[in-house]
Amino acid sequence: MYQVNENYLKLPGSYLFSTIAKKVAAFAEANPDKEILRLGIGDVTQPLCPAVIEALHKAVDEMADPATFRGYAPDLGYDFLRNTIVEKDYKARGCDISADEIFISDGAKSDSGNIQEIFGACSKIAVCDPVYPVYVDSNVMAGRTGIYDATTETWSDVIYMPTTKENGFVPEKPDKRPDLIYLCLPNNPTGTTLTKDQLQEWVDYANKEEAVIIFDAAYEAYIAEDDVPHSIYECDGARTCAIEIRSFSKNAGFTGLRLGFTVVPKDLKAGDVCLRDLWARRHGTKFNGAPYIVQRAGEAVYSPEGKAQTDEQIAYYMRNASVIRNGLLDAGYEVFGGINAPYIWMKTPDGMKSWDFFDHLLENANVVGTPGSGFGPSGEGYFRLTAFGTYENSVAALERIKAL
Amino acid sequence: MYQVNENYLKLPGSYLFSTIAKKVAAFAEANPDKEILRLGIGDVTQPLCPAVIEALHKAVDEMADPATFRGYAPDLGYDFLRNTIVEKDYKARGCDISADEIFISDGAKSDSGNIQEIFGACSKIAVCDPVYPVYVDSNVMAGRTGIYDATTETWSDVIYMPTTKENGFVPEKPDKRPDLIYLCLPNNPTGTTLTKDQLQEWVDYANKEEAVIIFDAAYEAYIAEDDVPHSIYECDGARTCAIEIRSFSKNAGFTGLRLGFTVVPKDLKAGDVCLRDLWARRHGTKFNGAPYIVQRAGEAVYSPEGKAQTDEQIAYYMRNASVIRNGLLDAGYEVFGGINAPYIWMKTPDGMKSWDFFDHLLENANVVGTPGSGFGPSGEGYFRLTAFGTYENSVAALERIKAL
Repeated sequence: MYQVNENYLKLPGSYLFSTIAKKVAAFAEANPDKEILRLGIGDVTQPLCPAVIEALHKAVDEMADPATFRGYAPDLGYDFLRNTIVEKDYKARGCDISADEIFISDGAKSDSGNIQEIFGACSKIAVCDPVYPVYVDSNVMAGRTGIYDATTETWSDVIYMPTTKENGFVPEKPDKRPDLIYLCLPNNPTGTTLTKDQLQEWVDYANKEEAVIIFDAAYEAYIAEDDVPHSIYECDGARTCAIEIRSFSKNAGFTGLRLGFTVVPKDLKAGDVCLRDLWARRHGTKFNGAPYIVQRAGEAVYSPEGKAQTDEQIAYYMRNASVIRNGLLDAGYEVFGGINAPYIWMKTPDGMKSWDFFDHLLENANVVGTPGSGFGPSGEGYFRLTAFGTYENSVAALERIKAL
Repeated sequence: MYQVNENYLKLPGSYLFSTIAKKVAAFAEANPDKEILRLGIGDVTQPLCPAVIEALHKAVDEMADPATFRGYAPDLGYDFLRNTIVEKDYKARGCDISADEIFISDGAKSDSGNIQEIFGACSKIAVCDPVYPVYVDSNVMAGRTGIYDATTETWSDVIYMPTTKENGFVPEKPDKRPDLIYLCLPNNPTGTTLTKDQLQEWVDYANKEEAVIIFDAAYEAYIAEDDVPHSIYECDGARTCAIEIRSFSKNAGFTGLRLGFTVVPKDLKAGDVCLRDLWARRHGTKFNGAPYIVQRAGEAVYSPEGKAQTDEQIAYYMRNASVIRNGLLDAGYEVFGGINAPYIWMKTPDGMKSWDFFDHLLENANVVGTPGSGFGPSGEGYFRLTAFGTYENSVAALERIKAL
């Protein structure tokens, strides 16, 4: 008989947000009179901005006309978008990245799940703890993570780098040498980030240890402070050790539109093998491009109107972040993040377990958040709230939490 | 130092259509005065139909309004689309498929490349020869295919099932037992297909041998003859042995819009393990859904207007297929396919090698086709022309070929 990929069977439980969705649905069914406020999953609520809508309509009209209709996109994505990204995201910040190092995709989740595929089966991965589940789960599926210990909720072959209030949410260099280091900055779920000097240390470390940093910069648009890098390529030497993943989901509200990109510099080489060429081969074999109309929508994000309008959306969400952060502080909670990121990371009260606090908040305040332990063992005793709701709901949720 | 996925390094040359694109670009640059007619890659040329355009505009407007804006899609895709597919593609043909067995994706290429991932690393694959390159290449990347023999252009661990004029393009059951059997029907590249009885034999064989059929039905809309199944689930017993992959690319011109789906029946089980649940886990971990607006466009394909309009497009392309088929027959070539599929598969004249005929046609008729050998060793001596061009170009190309 045929065999299945047994690594899949090692995955404990189901994907974090599916579990939350099921719990919330059960609560809603049992309590049809309660109004539930959702500050759980990091999904945006503001509609697409006018510049993006206009670009979409225009591109749709092009698809109706034989003279302007577009079929298969170029393998790496359309030049108009890749060239714009080079100018606005990289050259403008002094980063040396060229258009043929940029791969347009259907989003950062796909890319951060798929990128591990171009590396050897025995690669050791290092992740911050807590961490976005996709990094670990995609490596579990590939058989790289060893044995799962249900008690500690850790994998024997994964290097965990705790980021907690004790170390100021700055991951320490691991004792064992990693091959792949996943860094998400500004961080999901903690909402914290690193300064340029702190990130430079990681770039130097990766170059010294001949490791690759997978740098997830999905939240870079939320950076408010000056000495926080928007791209890892602002650090010296990053071209020889780092892959960067970017998203349009959070900076422009594209969660339902699906667009992202990955940068693989040509200087990133394992001996003679250029990682860019491997990723190009994967892209060309197992993917067929993001929709033309969505790539045009992405281009519009960089126009003067698009930039001004999406900046407004970001300001809107960061006002929510302030409401949540300050509300929690007023209520006496210990709070982190929410300054350079749309996530607020709080200590649960009285050492309560994360899932207990989830239930407590759902049942008593009818507010949905995300249990910190769902992101890794060092997330136990923490809880994540997101700023992606509406202003009114953010205010209302905090009033309820304060009243608990 | 970190290691790369060495299986990638085994892949010979680059993806077939990238190679063709480069050759054509070089010819065009050297011969700026020649008008090149492209009957090579299977990309559509007709614009999206009015029903689809209208659905796209409407959905774009929904994304502009906070009351109707949509963020992340449900894991499996929107109910409105999955329920429509159940009704129109399956119930209408007497197939027992439910909505929770349907996974909406960004296209059949992604799905047919990714589906191998849920199977064991040692799975033996069987493919028709010639074959759509993605099936083999994605298994090469996963390390399942053994050693490549450059002389025979075959992999030691792949079971090849020749489909040639000698066996009427009906693959024979392999000598060795396969775990995964890839069948694309109507076939790309040969344009031929199987009757329901012939497909039933394969379903019975797979059930007997406890193998899984990956059934790529991307071209089902082009079927003209009555006893040719549109879905493998028209055959008895397919629910316990078959996964079906569908596309909107060719039936509705979505190559630049990106939409497809995969059906994994709940009865498909390896012991206790339900393959549907594995695919759901992959979908939930490494993918974040097709764009809402594109899923609405897909729904519109099934509306009475959408159906009538896309049927017209298919008729348009099949008229091209007749032009090409009959033109080649008139010119004395031996020709297959083009009746239930938009591909015409011809023998090269005088035993000419496929790539030599490619060069011959490009240089002397300025017509681009696809060398049969690019699809596998048994494709040597054959050549593929596609019906996806405009009517005018199809006629012009055939005039030139006849004049050779």
